[in-house]
Amino acid sequence: MLPANEKWFTEVCKEAGSAISWGIDAHLAHETTDFQTIDVYRTTQWGNLMVIDGFVMLTSRDNFLYHEMLTHPALFSHPDPKQVVIIGGGDCGTLREVLGHQGVESVTQVEIDEQVTRLAEQHFPELCERNGDPRARLMFDDGLAYIKSIAAGSVDVIIVDSTDPIGPAEGLFGPGFIADCFAALAPGGILVQQSESPLLHQKLIGGIRANMEQAGFDDIRTLGFPQPCYPSGWWSATQARKGGTIEAVSPERFAASGIQTRYFNPGVHVGALATQLP
Amino acid sequence: MLPANEKWFTEVCKEAGSAISWGIDAHLAHETTDFQTIDVYRTTQWGNLMVIDGFVMLTSRDNFLYHEMLTHPALFSHPDPKQVVIIGGGDCGTLREVLGHQGVESVTQVEIDEQVTRLAEQHFPELCERNGDPRARLMFDDGLAYIKSIAAGSVDVIIVDSTDPIGPAEGLFGPGFIADCFAALAPGGILVQQSESPLLHQKLIGGIRANMEQAGFDDIRTLGFPQPCYPSGWWSATQARKGGTIEAVSPERFAASGIQTRYFNPGVHVGALATQLP
Repeated sequence: MLPANEKWFTEVCKEAGSAISWGIDAHLAHETTDFQTIDVYRTTQWGNLMVIDGFVMLTSRDNFLYHEMLTHPALFSHPDPKQVVIIGGGDCGTLREVLGHQGVESVTQVEIDEQVTRLAEQHFPELCERNGDPRARLMFDDGLAYIKSIAAGSVDVIIVDSTDPIGPAEGLFGPGFIADCFAALAPGGILVQQSESPLLHQKLIGGIRANMEQAGFDDIRTLGFPQPCYPSGWWSATQARKGGTIEAVSPERFAASGIQTRYFNPGVHVGALATQLP
Repeated sequence: MLPANEKWFTEVCKEAGSAISWGIDAHLAHETTDFQTIDVYRTTQWGNLMVIDGFVMLTSRDNFLYHEMLTHPALFSHPDPKQVVIIGGGDCGTLREVLGHQGVESVTQVEIDEQVTRLAEQHFPELCERNGDPRARLMFDDGLAYIKSIAAGSVDVIIVDSTDPIGPAEGLFGPGFIADCFAALAPGGILVQQSESPLLHQKLIGGIRANMEQAGFDDIRTLGFPQPCYPSGWWSATQARKGGTIEAVSPERFAASGIQTRYFNPGVHVGALATQLP
């Protein structure tokens, strides 16, 4: 039982028959936008917690795992990523990691709900510290339409940093969007999409992989990593490359990048690429 | 909020301000032994759940992660493990994995509480399927005293598969026990101990590593892996070798072993050995 004399935020994962709770000090924000309901809580030990439509998006304490693992494996598996697009990613943590790569010339982030970013600026300022980088362009628009609109073969890496595949993000898990990403990518380009839990969501992962294969992608890999604030604490990103294979970064390239991480490193990259669905 | 019209078992992790809950169908067992209180529940989607003194030990659905990662990295980092000792491990899942290694000649398991094994036989029979192997010896005794009693230099791998460092397992985390393990190990031998969460329990991990260093061990490595039923969903095993280094298994040796796994493989081994404490 959760102690009745304390305040808790609980996310029930209905499809898994499990739940995670955090002790709560304060309810910092509650906003209903055109797209969803956003809450921010102050937790007792996990820093701030952002919740969208009742589903946990991130906490201050553990978001580094997700943001590092969505970004660095994809960018380091591309020989020289210059043009990057982020779909979703409104908390700007992925954007911050992308901008750590010196060779990147431009990053366009297309988040549908501006309030996610405004609340992140307020409650997760560390994630937004590079938003003023001249290489960053923050758009608040429909990611599906944006990917359709850009020139074919113009992007090196597309990162789909979305909410769960219900509500506004549903289309981001469909075959049409994946095919549009394939068209937008230059040869050798990489698409990476957050793909839920390797333990709980194997059907969803299978669907993403099938869409990627159907779109014409070559190497398709699902990388697992720990993510305490999401159901099961074990999460994944699924990558697909348009021509060529997906390989782990060399220790030399990683060291030369000067990028500081708390989880990702060349050995962890090898391990993530070896993930098998259980 | 957890739905009030459903039954849930909740473990609160006080030191982390978080909790995990499972939907429950039935309370299958409740026993108070000389050492602790043991409960077994049937969950809605995680199979059976064993709880000791209110702390979750394992579920049918996700224990493969813990048992594989406590066992295979240690045995495969030893050139030819023949004599293995398990301290704790009463559910017999670690024993099952050890017995998968053809070269192992004997495994002695020293569990302090026989009822853990009796309840595992009843409610987790798949973990006990190799208990009748002629190489296996199941003792119900004090692991601290057992390690002190055996001949110096007689063991290749010691696996400490214990509960949390409170209650009966407390001594297993102290410097005296680690020093006794060092004495019991043959040259090149490996000690591995479950060492809690890399995110939540860094102080404990630091203490284990300091004890290992003080005992005279050479290479000391903390391997991270996902473990949904434990706080944060991210867990670790800390290994120490008596002379020599700890390396990942070669793909050739792993393939030749014939061992079937759902999580561990040579690439995952590389990743786990690259774990950095965040």
